[in-house]
Amino acid sequence: MEIEKDLKLEDFDNSDKYIIKVNNSEKFIKNFRNTKNTLFACTISSIETTKTIPISGVNAKVIDYTPAADMELVVLGKSVSLAHPPIDATNCPSPATITRAVVDLLKTSCITIDAGCNVKPKIPHILAEKEPTGDINVGKGIKNSKLLVETGKILGKHLICDKLILGESVPGGTTTAMGVLIGLGYDVRDKISSGSVANPKDLKLSVIQNGLSELKTMTEKASSYDIMNAVGDNMIAINAGICISLAERNIPVLLAGGGQMAGVLSIIKEISPETLTKELIGISTTEFVYNDPNADLQGILNQIGKIPTYISKFDYEKSSVDGLKAYCSGSVKEGVGAGAMATYAYLNGLKPEDIREYIEKYYYEWYNEIL
Amino acid sequence: MEIEKDLKLEDFDNSDKYIIKVNNSEKFIKNFRNTKNTLFACTISSIETTKTIPISGVNAKVIDYTPAADMELVVLGKSVSLAHPPIDATNCPSPATITRAVVDLLKTSCITIDAGCNVKPKIPHILAEKEPTGDINVGKGIKNSKLLVETGKILGKHLICDKLILGESVPGGTTTAMGVLIGLGYDVRDKISSGSVANPKDLKLSVIQNGLSELKTMTEKASSYDIMNAVGDNMIAINAGICISLAERNIPVLLAGGGQMAGVLSIIKEISPETLTKELIGISTTEFVYNDPNADLQGILNQIGKIPTYISKFDYEKSSVDGLKAYCSGSVKEGVGAGAMATYAYLNGLKPEDIREYIEKYYYEWYNEIL
Repeated sequence: MEIEKDLKLEDFDNSDKYIIKVNNSEKFIKNFRNTKNTLFACTISSIETTKTIPISGVNAKVIDYTPAADMELVVLGKSVSLAHPPIDATNCPSPATITRAVVDLLKTSCITIDAGCNVKPKIPHILAEKEPTGDINVGKGIKNSKLLVETGKILGKHLICDKLILGESVPGGTTTAMGVLIGLGYDVRDKISSGSVANPKDLKLSVIQNGLSELKTMTEKASSYDIMNAVGDNMIAINAGICISLAERNIPVLLAGGGQMAGVLSIIKEISPETLTKELIGISTTEFVYNDPNADLQGILNQIGKIPTYISKFDYEKSSVDGLKAYCSGSVKEGVGAGAMATYAYLNGLKPEDIREYIEKYYYEWYNEIL
Repeated sequence: MEIEKDLKLEDFDNSDKYIIKVNNSEKFIKNFRNTKNTLFACTISSIETTKTIPISGVNAKVIDYTPAADMELVVLGKSVSLAHPPIDATNCPSPATITRAVVDLLKTSCITIDAGCNVKPKIPHILAEKEPTGDINVGKGIKNSKLLVETGKILGKHLICDKLILGESVPGGTTTAMGVLIGLGYDVRDKISSGSVANPKDLKLSVIQNGLSELKTMTEKASSYDIMNAVGDNMIAINAGICISLAERNIPVLLAGGGQMAGVLSIIKEISPETLTKELIGISTTEFVYNDPNADLQGILNQIGKIPTYISKFDYEKSSVDGLKAYCSGSVKEGVGAGAMATYAYLNGLKPEDIREYIEKYYYEWYNEIL
């Protein structure tokens, strides 16, 4: 009896095995230890720069279709805007497959937030911004980032959930995140991952420098809105607004991603620093991003502040599918909420093998036309 | 002590004074007796027929802007797509003013569902269908109503709420509702209200007959989808789908409106009759619709089945604003969720005077440019 009395919920939670709690806040993470009224929201946008400059690893032919096809997979279990879910040159499937597994296994509610996608997903989605993110190479990333933050705030004011997992699908979005962080004075050298094995860092930096050079001609100090307008993307502004509103309503948000969500955090810190003081905003990404030898997410987060940080592990090395094993060699890594959704899954009784086996089961069905 | 023990929540609920419980289901309505996780969703659409045939009382110049301006008022407290919230020739303000009052006083979460509006609201909104409802005069109301019902079902599967209040803003929508009901064989003669004092019934009937005549050339019996495709509107199909999904998840829905929601109920009865057997779908409208001498809502609902039905009273006869008093003479009557939102307000401690005084307070601010 004594023993039983001393046992707490945490003792039954073996998520420590599958989650690296880099910066743990029990107050924060306990909110995600049940599945009631969990909402997964994913903000998607195209970036015009990707049409002419290969800052994204996504195949140019399908880049406009990728966010739509990702969220169709998450919500419907199949992609409609493309013949199959996005897949890279190493046959590595979109991270949306991970999110789909969790959404289906835990019956999670999803919404797609369109922040300017050239191809609209063929599922109901929230239109938050019509125009895509512009060309950051000429300093025209966002038309009016202040308005987009306000849009995000309105959206956040009306979302019903007990906790939110907030992701993105923005091809080219690691460059815009780097741009915002550099513009705000962060040291991000060799710290931001890429969706491809070969991270075109020099190209990304030169695009960002081109974009930010537009700001230097201004006499006054550039505001965080100016910086977003020059080199940011629509997702960053909208997700920042959503976080600010939800924190005001005491609803916790787990930002789903690595460098891109660090970009969101850096903007929140500028325009609403109190939002980050309440242990209501955390971040989670995959081990593939966290352990990326070409990046240092923790090095960026440490500059922003003490953010609850959770890294989800996978067991893809055990996979019978080469395309999944490719994750272990640096392909794809993260996106469409994958890392945080895995963390959420492990907090609620699932194991890495549950996600892997789900994807292995559907892999050949999803990709039967090309394999 | 004895007395206290015997008192129940209902004894403190004086909503009987302000709500006519035409067909009461305590099991159903008790769900709406608290404000936790209540979602108000409003599905909006344009109807192409209104461009050439005056089946709607809304001024032709602003008809395309009306749904957008209505929902902007509800969410933001002001219209953006128009210089002021919609108002009719009698200076009678849009029913969105009632919904705005309740949303603001009870801090209700709102979403706008775009089912094909020619003018998009300048607030985040869910895109469910891009194309407006077509021309019912030629039997081309909905392109693919089966697909739209499925879209509504997907949406309903992912909405988080404890209970939903589901409304519409569809200029011309009383005619499409009549069309669907007539197509399904209901007797709706002199039974459906209009948003104007003079209800152009003959014109509406002739449009519906034109639209339905297309169906008569078919050899087999027309399905409910065929009927919707001929003379229905996008809102009816989407709202029906949402109701079916939510009932599957045991989440109650209060349909907000009169004849238009009777149209939704008639479709649900055809394609998912079990949805109506669980006391999870009710309807609520204003006394202005219910007591309309030119209509008979109850006469329609009785043909559909035993639907929990609630009528909200107002005290606009006491108003100092002539435009509000105009409701008592048959102007506007209902729309944008007004009747059900008032019922919801009365179930949660508000009184008719709270709504009236809120609108009186803002009336001259909203309409200062034209009064």
